[in-house]
Amino acid sequence: MKKNLKVGLVGATGMVGQTFVKLLEETHFPVEELRPFASEASLGKSISLQGKSYPIQILKDKCFVGLDVVFFSSGDDISAEWAPKAVADGAFAVDNSAAFRMDDSKVLCVPEVNSHLLHKNKPAIVANPNCSTIQLVVALKPLVEKFGVERVHVATYQAVSGAGQAAYDELLEQTKKALNQQTIEPQNFLHQIAFNLIPQVGSMGANGFCSEEIKIIKETKKILGQPQLPVSAFTVRVPVLNSHSEVAWVRLPKKISREEFVGALKAQVGLQVVESSYPMPKDCSNKNPVYVGRIHQDLDDPQTWIFWVVADNIRKGAAWNGLQIASELFDISLNQ
Amino acid sequence: MKKNLKVGLVGATGMVGQTFVKLLEETHFPVEELRPFASEASLGKSISLQGKSYPIQILKDKCFVGLDVVFFSSGDDISAEWAPKAVADGAFAVDNSAAFRMDDSKVLCVPEVNSHLLHKNKPAIVANPNCSTIQLVVALKPLVEKFGVERVHVATYQAVSGAGQAAYDELLEQTKKALNQQTIEPQNFLHQIAFNLIPQVGSMGANGFCSEEIKIIKETKKILGQPQLPVSAFTVRVPVLNSHSEVAWVRLPKKISREEFVGALKAQVGLQVVESSYPMPKDCSNKNPVYVGRIHQDLDDPQTWIFWVVADNIRKGAAWNGLQIASELFDISLNQ
Repeated sequence: MKKNLKVGLVGATGMVGQTFVKLLEETHFPVEELRPFASEASLGKSISLQGKSYPIQILKDKCFVGLDVVFFSSGDDISAEWAPKAVADGAFAVDNSAAFRMDDSKVLCVPEVNSHLLHKNKPAIVANPNCSTIQLVVALKPLVEKFGVERVHVATYQAVSGAGQAAYDELLEQTKKALNQQTIEPQNFLHQIAFNLIPQVGSMGANGFCSEEIKIIKETKKILGQPQLPVSAFTVRVPVLNSHSEVAWVRLPKKISREEFVGALKAQVGLQVVESSYPMPKDCSNKNPVYVGRIHQDLDDPQTWIFWVVADNIRKGAAWNGLQIASELFDISLNQ
Repeated sequence: MKKNLKVGLVGATGMVGQTFVKLLEETHFPVEELRPFASEASLGKSISLQGKSYPIQILKDKCFVGLDVVFFSSGDDISAEWAPKAVADGAFAVDNSAAFRMDDSKVLCVPEVNSHLLHKNKPAIVANPNCSTIQLVVALKPLVEKFGVERVHVATYQAVSGAGQAAYDELLEQTKKALNQQTIEPQNFLHQIAFNLIPQVGSMGANGFCSEEIKIIKETKKILGQPQLPVSAFTVRVPVLNSHSEVAWVRLPKKISREEFVGALKAQVGLQVVESSYPMPKDCSNKNPVYVGRIHQDLDDPQTWIFWVVADNIRKGAAWNGLQIASELFDISLNQ
């Protein structure tokens, strides 16, 4: 397999795009050429990578010709339109949007969980799951495999970086205003987020679930290959800058020992079991693994286990997972 | 029943104590005399109530003589020692600490749920439940009564005011430091709380649960009179100043309609159903009711219902609930 790649990056100036660049650098990813795409507002800017400078371009017909892989992180509409064009131009598309995730013909991939789907027939478009889903399935995978799972309940505590750079900046701004007793008018959020909680991520559906919850429910089943697995999710935006946290209740079909349960999690690639204390968003940011802690057995139902799972939603929840997908497609070992 | 009360207030200068004073004022509670107690550091200060000024006193033998009711909000040790002395001095003790909550001989009371226990044989010491428990049981009560409940899962999002005034002030201070990139050294928390989450409230037990979770689990069963009800709780401190939030999954023994479920909640005294949007901590602070929203049926299990419940943990979670208990004991209607 070719080892020096020509890489496209759609949404290069966004939070995920910038993290992609950081990760390409950190991992010494074999980039022969970077072609960064952004909106017209960014024309004239450049992206520096591995000692070279690459000017921002805008999307146009045939803009992907010559590229090996294009990472998309610019929203559903852009991906729906341009990922097929990247494929037509001869590149693999690794898409961070929701455009193709629930398309039965598309692979939805978390490499630690289902990378085998990338190897049989290399899929031209690979969908990167929702950030909240990724960290959950990395923890669920060894449980499904070793014990089977009967039911999952998950409540999320989601950082504002999941809503993008402007939302990240807005939490800081709102917080300053709150400290100074100034009026807050939310821009990127439906409500004030500083010192507050918003129990809705994405749009609200008629069934009472918001879109983030539906993503977690559907994507978890698809990635784990467990279409009948009952999954219930409740998602909340919290005034944390980066890294999503989740508490999960997982019911197994039989009672097992703590050693078996924790052992299964410890053996999972990409998952770090924290036993001395517990993972927290401030400690997990700018790191690639998924962290799990507070692993314990329910008091009233010994078949139910509870744990707390935290990951950098921009890294493992987006850019790092995307880069892992590309490294599988091109058989490149990532220097971590 | 006597309608002009001589009221003792232990912990008068703390967050809950100050809120008691505010509520006595707001409700035009018939106070003939207030006897506020605090530590020596507060000697010389006074508490103003209903146009009178009452000097702070310190606890000493026979200090409760002549009082009708004493509210305790100074921690477990003080209550364990002094509440029985208040009773010996002839007063009722309404205790906000955990000292007597799980004592089988003591009433643990949320008036909207089990006020009948205050009327048969008036208990001399009445325990006020944990704040996170109170808001949960107000929502569970009509469900247990009308449909029965098979199982409860609850994840909390707890404000720093639950840890007292110093913790409240510390979140503000830590936040300023975080905004200015200054080093943060936690004082009232185990870890940084500004822009972070701490998945532990209270001390950690050997069974993997923290003390706040055990309180919710045990107190919920006791208050609802459902010792066999499986309850699982996971508690998290969030960077919110005031009002606790919780997501609850409640499994019923049979499938019912949305109208029946929401109707039961709407009929519950002390519970406000929010249907236009959803309750959030910033909107529920300085209010007495418990607010519930985002009521919906699980997709994979139609017998499971999900909702989001928010209440001011200092008011309904402590002072307001305590005042309601006293108003029941003395048959006083609270002017709300």
